[in-house]
Amino acid sequence: MPRPAPQRARRAGTAAAPNWRALSMPRTVPRIVMKFGGTSVADLDRIRAVAEKVHKQVAAGCEVAVVVSAMSGVTNRLVGYCQSLSPLHDAKEYDAVVATGEQVTSGLLAIALQTLGLEARSWLGWQIPLRTDGAHGKARIDSIDGEALITRMRAGQVPVIAGFQGVDPDGRITTLGRGGSDTSAVALAAALQADRCDIYTDVDGIYTTDPRIVARARKLDKITYEEMLELASVGAKVLQTRSVELAMKERVRVQVLSSFSDGPAPSEDNLPGSLVVDEDEIVEKELVAGIAYSRDEAKLSVRRIPDRPGIAAAIFGPLTAANVNVDMIVQSTGADGLTNMTFTTGKTDLARAIQALEAARDVIQYGEMATDDDVVKISVVGVGMRSHAGVANTMFRTLSDRNINIQVISTSEIKVSVLIAAEYTELAVRALHTAYGLDAA
Amino acid sequence: MPRPAPQRARRAGTAAAPNWRALSMPRTVPRIVMKFGGTSVADLDRIRAVAEKVHKQVAAGCEVAVVVSAMSGVTNRLVGYCQSLSPLHDAKEYDAVVATGEQVTSGLLAIALQTLGLEARSWLGWQIPLRTDGAHGKARIDSIDGEALITRMRAGQVPVIAGFQGVDPDGRITTLGRGGSDTSAVALAAALQADRCDIYTDVDGIYTTDPRIVARARKLDKITYEEMLELASVGAKVLQTRSVELAMKERVRVQVLSSFSDGPAPSEDNLPGSLVVDEDEIVEKELVAGIAYSRDEAKLSVRRIPDRPGIAAAIFGPLTAANVNVDMIVQSTGADGLTNMTFTTGKTDLARAIQALEAARDVIQYGEMATDDDVVKISVVGVGMRSHAGVANTMFRTLSDRNINIQVISTSEIKVSVLIAAEYTELAVRALHTAYGLDAA
Repeated sequence: MPRPAPQRARRAGTAAAPNWRALSMPRTVPRIVMKFGGTSVADLDRIRAVAEKVHKQVAAGCEVAVVVSAMSGVTNRLVGYCQSLSPLHDAKEYDAVVATGEQVTSGLLAIALQTLGLEARSWLGWQIPLRTDGAHGKARIDSIDGEALITRMRAGQVPVIAGFQGVDPDGRITTLGRGGSDTSAVALAAALQADRCDIYTDVDGIYTTDPRIVARARKLDKITYEEMLELASVGAKVLQTRSVELAMKERVRVQVLSSFSDGPAPSEDNLPGSLVVDEDEIVEKELVAGIAYSRDEAKLSVRRIPDRPGIAAAIFGPLTAANVNVDMIVQSTGADGLTNMTFTTGKTDLARAIQALEAARDVIQYGEMATDDDVVKISVVGVGMRSHAGVANTMFRTLSDRNINIQVISTSEIKVSVLIAAEYTELAVRALHTAYGLDAA
Repeated sequence: MPRPAPQRARRAGTAAAPNWRALSMPRTVPRIVMKFGGTSVADLDRIRAVAEKVHKQVAAGCEVAVVVSAMSGVTNRLVGYCQSLSPLHDAKEYDAVVATGEQVTSGLLAIALQTLGLEARSWLGWQIPLRTDGAHGKARIDSIDGEALITRMRAGQVPVIAGFQGVDPDGRITTLGRGGSDTSAVALAAALQADRCDIYTDVDGIYTTDPRIVARARKLDKITYEEMLELASVGAKVLQTRSVELAMKERVRVQVLSSFSDGPAPSEDNLPGSLVVDEDEIVEKELVAGIAYSRDEAKLSVRRIPDRPGIAAAIFGPLTAANVNVDMIVQSTGADGLTNMTFTTGKTDLARAIQALEAARDVIQYGEMATDDDVVKISVVGVGMRSHAGVANTMFRTLSDRNINIQVISTSEIKVSVLIAAEYTELAVRALHTAYGLDAA
């Protein structure tokens, strides 16, 4: 199957991108960024196993850079320290404390690689440097200087980079927010002009849906950035959303694969995981890539509002001010001329949302407010639905056949989502998985 | 009691010293470096208690910089990780891993200080920068740029500096060797032109001898650098030897005091601990400052060597080559014309010493070798003995009165040491403590 030359694709992608400095010399050997999450480096035995995987990839003739997370549990312990000392702690100090988790792993993995005879060294954010803005605790990457890393990789060295961290314009350590090591890995893959960014995790790929619910869920060999974004944001928590957005923007080919399975080092002819790529690289597109669900939803209804212009602004203005994220929205007007507004938000935002709306009751002039957090959002995702009608209808019919009532509907170019009662979650997901022909043979 | 102006004393001391860059503006408020060891920051409650101490010192009108160790146990855990992965691990990676302990404490203490309303921030070795040579795992400080710290202290900020760490000429993290946070604190006190370096630890000062052996041991209000060096090197493990050497060279006044006792912030009129200072600052010098003992000794005797020139070189050459440190040496020649050489070394060096001497037996031509590690070294230390005869004689007589046999004797300008059987340790220390008039009233 033909795929666009990575070099060309990357160049197109970096046009409007941050300043990724890197050498641009012709290259014949594949260059791979390997990223290992917290469970993959949970203890010394796991770190040794990771070293073996890296060794295999190098032995297969690749230039390799490694990005690591903190050993699992470490970050939570450090965050707990900060919160215990002060719930409103200084984000700069939080970053200095929490970034040590990845620092430890990078040094330990470098040692483990050296025992296998590889030339390896650890790199901290400030040493590369990986420059970020000053938004401590959730910093965004401004630029990565890839020169030193590339020079050393060409000389056979394996850089082991502490993920999740960078350095701000004042020379202080920053962190990229929880799960930020995925973003580090993708950004480094772009800066290093890598052929692929392999994200090793505790699952072996992206599935058509949650295998815990649907035993016949299928692993996807390829999935587009757009689909992955929709799946990530609706509950399939394999990759951090920001890392997928960055991969899409920079045209970084990302493979999700298991760090717990053995086997030969992945190559383009043999990719054991799921490859997240540009749509162009997928020849036979499925109509629907997957079925996602999110239990993290709550429904709010503001009822019996005198209909007039500006109702939506009156309701959602206070919510925005209270930092409440609103997702699905439905407005309906009854025969009595009174309007009802129903919307969903995250469960953790619900209390804040109620408070904001009660405070604005005189302005909105609603008759009553009702809430329900016993709901689930089910989404059908696929780039194929751009060119095929009937995807939404199949969904509605399938749910109707099971007597499942749809409370709210929202659609985007490549997604149809419905809100239903939480008790139907498994039934709905299984029925839709079958209806769209996703069941494994 | 008059004491030399710290400014003058420091200037004299820094003449031949590394390049401590610092602003040299006139200053009216006292400037104190406070250093807290691992047991003083063992957990969050202890860190909060340290923050209170720092707050008191600031409230007393001082400019304060703080140096911290890792929370107790953390460094050992990190060292254990490195050793478990590879007994011969890369010292550069070891440093990157182990330095995180102090980084965590500095961030946490900065947060704790902020909750008390102080403006505080953490500083890592590379941020100051505290520059060292490239001897990873046991680096030596080359220079400290104190400008940024001084500017901020003048503006009321409290720098919280991660001890034990620096940055090498290649921009990689170094550590100063175990206990190196004391050295960090003294070097920073010199660079910041501090009036005093207060080392908070788990004892409340320097004692005339080990209080666990002599209940009537007295805390010394003042002790000279030279005495402290002798006491440290013979077993009173309160301050790291290198930190005392540096304090002497830089004329940094060091106070050892307890982090576990409450009370007002120390001031020059009220120093609760023991002050380690220049001899000039002690008007009434004691003849003997203290009695130290070291159980970490082993005795080696090489006997019946045909007497000839070059015997000492033949014996100690191979020991030096085997990296064996030799301490006390006695040579005696019997009536038969055969020579005996007896010397002491650390218990951990004994096996290596035996091996080296057996390998060199043909060259040395000794009749037999005997070893004894059931010995202890007792030392009487005091600058007063420079101008007073009879100190050694009092020691010999006191031990003779108790029928304690002296196996080896060595003396320096301010110390007399003897090697005796280990079973007499407590008896000898108590008798000498009384004989030199050190018992508390």
